[in-house]
Amino acid sequence: MVERQAKLYEGKAKIVYATADPNIVISYFKDDATAFNAQKRGQIADKGVVNCKVATHLFQLLESQGVKTHWLETPSDREMVVRAVNIIPLEVVVRNLAAGSLCKQTGLALGTPLTPPLVEFYYKNDDLGDPLLTRDRIRAMNLADEAQIHELTRLAGEINTLLQTFFQRCQITLVDFKLEFGLDQTGQILLADEISPDTCRLWDQAKSDQAERVLDKDRFRQDLGNVAEAYQEVLKRILAQVNLK
Amino acid sequence: MVERQAKLYEGKAKIVYATADPNIVISYFKDDATAFNAQKRGQIADKGVVNCKVATHLFQLLESQGVKTHWLETPSDREMVVRAVNIIPLEVVVRNLAAGSLCKQTGLALGTPLTPPLVEFYYKNDDLGDPLLTRDRIRAMNLADEAQIHELTRLAGEINTLLQTFFQRCQITLVDFKLEFGLDQTGQILLADEISPDTCRLWDQAKSDQAERVLDKDRFRQDLGNVAEAYQEVLKRILAQVNLK
Ligand SMILES: Nc1ncnc2c1ncn2[C@@H]1O[C@H](COP(=O)(O)OP(=O)(O)OP(=O)(O)O)[C@@H](O)[C@H]1O
Ligand SMILES: Nc1ncnc2c1ncn2[C@@H]1O[C@H](COP(=O)(O)OP(=O)(O)OP(=O)(O)O)[C@@H](O)[C@H]1O
Ligand SMILES: [Mg+2]
Ligand SMILES: [Mg+2]
Repeated sequence: MVERQAKLYEGKAKIVYATADPNIVISYFKDDATAFNAQKRGQIADKGVVNCKVATHLFQLLESQGVKTHWLETPSDREMVVRAVNIIPLEVVVRNLAAGSLCKQTGLALGTPLTPPLVEFYYKNDDLGDPLLTRDRIRAMNLADEAQIHELTRLAGEINTLLQTFFQRCQITLVDFKLEFGLDQTGQILLADEISPDTCRLWDQAKSDQAERVLDKDRFRQDLGNVAEAYQEVLKRILAQVNLK
Repeated sequence: MVERQAKLYEGKAKIVYATADPNIVISYFKDDATAFNAQKRGQIADKGVVNCKVATHLFQLLESQGVKTHWLETPSDREMVVRAVNIIPLEVVVRNLAAGSLCKQTGLALGTPLTPPLVEFYYKNDDLGDPLLTRDRIRAMNLADEAQIHELTRLAGEINTLLQTFFQRCQITLVDFKLEFGLDQTGQILLADEISPDTCRLWDQAKSDQAERVLDKDRFRQDLGNVAEAYQEVLKRILAQVNLK
């Protein structure tokens, strides 16, 4: 059992703790929810527990398909033991259908299919409001080189294919999602942070009404109600699939 | 002499008139100035005259170097006779040094050299606030195909090289500029709209103080004073070079 030591960082959704091993940290999942760069704040009952379990299953799924992630073990309801990485300050967003800021910025209608899926990069910088980056800007800012951008794009596409297939079995449409990657002590790129209803847009395929089908943080962003219930529903469907195996 | 007929469009800086020939329009340059998506409005004395002359000389320069532009003739102080085109709804921005929205969005310091220069695309859409586009978004929005994006990038780079060399002779640093391209009736891509202190950032190489060296619309945006004088100075230096030949 890995023991928590000093608190290294408290973010909006998680707390990162050191362990006795400098290459290992513990990610503690909170119920705190924020949106619109933390202008909107709240709590979602048991979100930390749900997201920790959802992320655990999805990381295990990806690992089983050969994707290198930071996940090591999940010793309790809200704690995940992960490899410590230096986070690359890019939010890598994969979009299968248009939603959110893409619609606002381009005028594309909500739900417009994107074929091939868009792989986008945003600067992970709250002060600047996580702005969209072009590949050229990433290079000009020295955030990543050509080879890293290419590798992140490839990984994001591969992860998308695997997650799409899995969520399809859950009768959930994977609209879009945000990934964070980091470099471990050997310089290898690992998928880090979390994959959960906080970081994905997930639509229930059994519903057609937009306000009803949303099973993700958009329920919180847009005050659609039944936020905690939607998160639980995602976990329930994932567990049903995992138990089938 | 080409006669003005019906007004086709009144923009923030120019009015477009039809002529007897449907493939030819007249661009009339006004003194009106706007900034920040027209939230700030004003007038700059004789700006229309200066910009019409500046754009005329720069279009002639580019044409002489093999760049296809819409320019045909400049029959009066504020009027330019140009080939009518269907404007591609992209603002093509070339950046040699970081300034403006690039600094705001990335945190890059004002004046950071960009090597190679950045060629960026923004959606020409006032309602959406002319947002930055990635090449993938341009394709998803069907605004241009791969070959057109490639050609626009190539043209923008070539124009940058020619303009940089010319402004260097004027002892002016070409910091960045915005271009608009259009398709003529044969489907050929032509450089259109204008190139002027309204659409370029130009710094006087004889000055080092930031507030003093600015010779472009940033004097208006930032209330730096002597706006009309700066526009006149740009024209004066261009004329001095043109008369040398
Ligand atoms: N394996 C890891 N090693 C080190 N840091 C990690 C790892 N995985 C995720 N992180 C980072 O830990 C933090 C998790 O906290 P949280 O998600 O609450 O942050 P946040 O509020 O989203 O703020 P931030 O903008 O910093 O992400 C994030 O900064 C995330 O990038
Ligand atoms: N050769 C051309 N043929 C047709 N339209 C042109 C040509 N060159 C420029 N235009 C268009 O004519 C208009 C010029 O007006 P102006 O520059 O004042 O517009 P604006 O206020 O900047 O608004 P807009 O957002 O429409 O550009 C622009 O819409 C520009 O795209
Ligand atoms: Mg986070
Ligand atoms: Mg214009």
